[in-house]
Amino acid sequence: MNELSVDHLLGIKDVTENDIRLIFQTADQFKEVINRPIKKVPSLRDITIANLFFENSTRTRLSFELAEKRLSADVVNFSASSSSVSKGETLIDTVNNILSMKVDMVVMRHPNPGAAQFLSKHIDARIVNAGDGTHEHPTQALLDAYSIREKLGDLSGKKVVIVGDILHSRVALSNIFCLQKLGAEVMVCGPTTLIPKFIHTLGVRVEYNLDKALAWCDVANMLRVQHERMDIKYFPSIREYTMQYGVNMERLNRLDKEITIMHPGPINRGVEITSEVADSDQALILQQVENGVAIRMSVLYLLANRGLVSSGD
Amino acid sequence: MNELSVDHLLGIKDVTENDIRLIFQTADQFKEVINRPIKKVPSLRDITIANLFFENSTRTRLSFELAEKRLSADVVNFSASSSSVSKGETLIDTVNNILSMKVDMVVMRHPNPGAAQFLSKHIDARIVNAGDGTHEHPTQALLDAYSIREKLGDLSGKKVVIVGDILHSRVALSNIFCLQKLGAEVMVCGPTTLIPKFIHTLGVRVEYNLDKALAWCDVANMLRVQHERMDIKYFPSIREYTMQYGVNMERLNRLDKEITIMHPGPINRGVEITSEVADSDQALILQQVENGVAIRMSVLYLLANRGLVSSGD
Amino acid sequence: MNELSVDHLLGIKDVTENDIRLIFQTADQFKEVINRPIKKVPSLRDITIANLFFENSTRTRLSFELAEKRLSADVVNFSASSSSVSKGETLIDTVNNILSMKVDMVVMRHPNPGAAQFLSKHIDARIVNAGDGTHEHPTQALLDAYSIREKLGDLSGKKVVIVGDILHSRVALSNIFCLQKLGAEVMVCGPTTLIPKFIHTLGVRVEYNLDKALAWCDVANMLRVQHERMDIKYFPSIREYTMQYGVNMERLNRLDKEITIMHPGPINRGVEITSEVADSDQALILQQVENGVAIRMSVLYLLANRGLVSSGD
Repeated sequence: MNELSVDHLLGIKDVTENDIRLIFQTADQFKEVINRPIKKVPSLRDITIANLFFENSTRTRLSFELAEKRLSADVVNFSASSSSVSKGETLIDTVNNILSMKVDMVVMRHPNPGAAQFLSKHIDARIVNAGDGTHEHPTQALLDAYSIREKLGDLSGKKVVIVGDILHSRVALSNIFCLQKLGAEVMVCGPTTLIPKFIHTLGVRVEYNLDKALAWCDVANMLRVQHERMDIKYFPSIREYTMQYGVNMERLNRLDKEITIMHPGPINRGVEITSEVADSDQALILQQVENGVAIRMSVLYLLANRGLVSSGD
Repeated sequence: MNELSVDHLLGIKDVTENDIRLIFQTADQFKEVINRPIKKVPSLRDITIANLFFENSTRTRLSFELAEKRLSADVVNFSASSSSVSKGETLIDTVNNILSMKVDMVVMRHPNPGAAQFLSKHIDARIVNAGDGTHEHPTQALLDAYSIREKLGDLSGKKVVIVGDILHSRVALSNIFCLQKLGAEVMVCGPTTLIPKFIHTLGVRVEYNLDKALAWCDVANMLRVQHERMDIKYFPSIREYTMQYGVNMERLNRLDKEITIMHPGPINRGVEITSEVADSDQALILQQVENGVAIRMSVLYLLANRGLVSSGD
Repeated sequence: MNELSVDHLLGIKDVTENDIRLIFQTADQFKEVINRPIKKVPSLRDITIANLFFENSTRTRLSFELAEKRLSADVVNFSASSSSVSKGETLIDTVNNILSMKVDMVVMRHPNPGAAQFLSKHIDARIVNAGDGTHEHPTQALLDAYSIREKLGDLSGKKVVIVGDILHSRVALSNIFCLQKLGAEVMVCGPTTLIPKFIHTLGVRVEYNLDKALAWCDVANMLRVQHERMDIKYFPSIREYTMQYGVNMERLNRLDKEITIMHPGPINRGVEITSEVADSDQALILQQVENGVAIRMSVLYLLANRGLVSSGD
């Protein structure tokens, strides 16, 4: 139980409950570290990590970069806009070239579902999936579950509703897998057009009415609205969406209990949640961001410990 | 007198003469450091600094980044183009998210006047304003005054003219505040359309004739011409501007004294000043750049010393 | 023979055979370093290196950045898109400003032939040319020759053909100089429109038929096709190019010997070479990338040793 069962973190679907619990226990220690005056540990000294971002991202890239630097790794950043990908090179050539420079680990965000898994079969380095299209975003799910555990204790039996565009959300899918493996009950809630048909095969509840969902849950994880989805195909308008699926204080006050509100960010204030909710004590949003660094340190550390040739430990 | 009177460096308007003198004395020591073979000091080890640039900048970002690295800080860079700001996130959410990752100091350039001050009221980190719209650019003014002091001694009684587009210049405004606090006499010189009406309330002289201004001053600080301003609204043409407000050797030789020429860069050679002037011994331009690193090290060091939780000192 | 004969690496044309052999011997040592668990050496501690890329590049920038970090240098990156170059500043002003911040070495890629040489005459820092327009790309030629030497032994008498767009290729020109200085025989092969008229003055063979070229050589270095060149002016179409100048297994199997295939990357799979060739044991492509880091460490280290004021050695 001191080692992960996987060589890469491609998705939550592939990891065991024990893996998740080991990641959490290790993150507990790193969270102490990053709250000390001396926020660095030498664990990954002499490890080189490449952050390959084929899609823009503020917080995910920064969070990984800080996690890597606090583990004392050497970091190189690569973003698609400044890359030779635009010259028509294949993904595997790009990554193989980077690895030939003796990079030990790759953190990759890519628009294609399965991109990280594809890589893991063809290259000789530890891979962390930082989001692959609409497929998975495993570290987000881990930090979400870790933040719930921190506030409410063990997740077994906790009721979590994920609200919004389930159809296009890698955050939703990874969260469902993670919460279920930890024994939580999961519901999804959103417009019918944004809930995928296969959802029933995942063993989650489905609810189209937000007030009923909030009445049921302990935690509501509010997904970000992608403005480009709010068209005639999926939903009449942002305004309509907010009326039906936005959380405000009035809605929360109507409940006979205090539920916890989460959001993977960036927030559209006044759309998924009002500013009053976002800035209230019920919201875990900034704790999620803080825990993201600890979770990513934990994942990188544990993967490096699985027989990395050049492990500095 | 060993501590700044402020928690942030938002503008020169907010700091005292003593603050400025303390920054200069500390910069003297850092200037020695960066001219040694070993250019680094461990002062800010274990401090994490985020450079948030919502506007492009070559020299200011590089100057801060080098200052931070020579203080041994951990540095993360964030630029607007690769950010979630384009996704509609508010400034305060972006910065709060970055701070939740345990960033201790923020260096920010932003197109909106007051952006740095707004942040300082809402977040829990030391802020250095690296330029906020047309408002202030305090480290530029400090390095300008420091460069004059280095060449001509104490600024008290020195005569400095700022030439060019005073109306839109954060450099001009910060310079006026800084020079006045140090006892210098300040004049502004430029076309009437580019001198703001409120200038008289600041206690500075106004002169529309460059030759008269040069005859009066010890130092001429030539502001950069923004090509986009040279339209019918403000001024007939670049060529006309150069004829009236450009400094060349002929103009300088007509004076009965040697004045010092400054420019915040980047220079439009042949517009504000000719190449002959820019590359002459009268010009302080490259010294300004060199002093910029020392001044920024000084500012970051002194702000960190004001009770930063995780100060490594 | 323990020192380079040059202060900068501007092109292979300027260096001696002894310089090249010294770079190779030093690279041998660094190659050992980067294949150890501890991949760093403290050789350039306290040296600051600026990577100035006025053109996009994935692998060259990353390769230099990794080389610099493994030598423990402090690194700052500057790319043209986020620069003040767009504000009309001259190259020399940009670089002088960066140097005034006490940068010791500059690695520069620039679209203008001669840009690196121009700089070296005007600024006081060691310069490494990372590609200047169609002129030279010396570290690429060094890593190519080093990779051949590693596989086939001393280059004296070896036969190398460079295939493709010789006219626009800095890689071709640097390779010709480097291979000749090491005693190899060089042939170029490509469409008549893509072979420059002055090629005969360089003492290389010219062959328009690929099969004859392959039959002659020990090594074929396949240049990347620039899609934008494949127009009516230079060549009918990519498809036509591949038929005449693309290497596939059928072509290689027709030879009575096994030749070595090289490519500077990024590959257009199925154009210059098929995937089967690229991924075969005859191809040196990933070894070239790996050797690139060692060669660049060697060049930076040796240049720093030529009396750099702040050498950390």
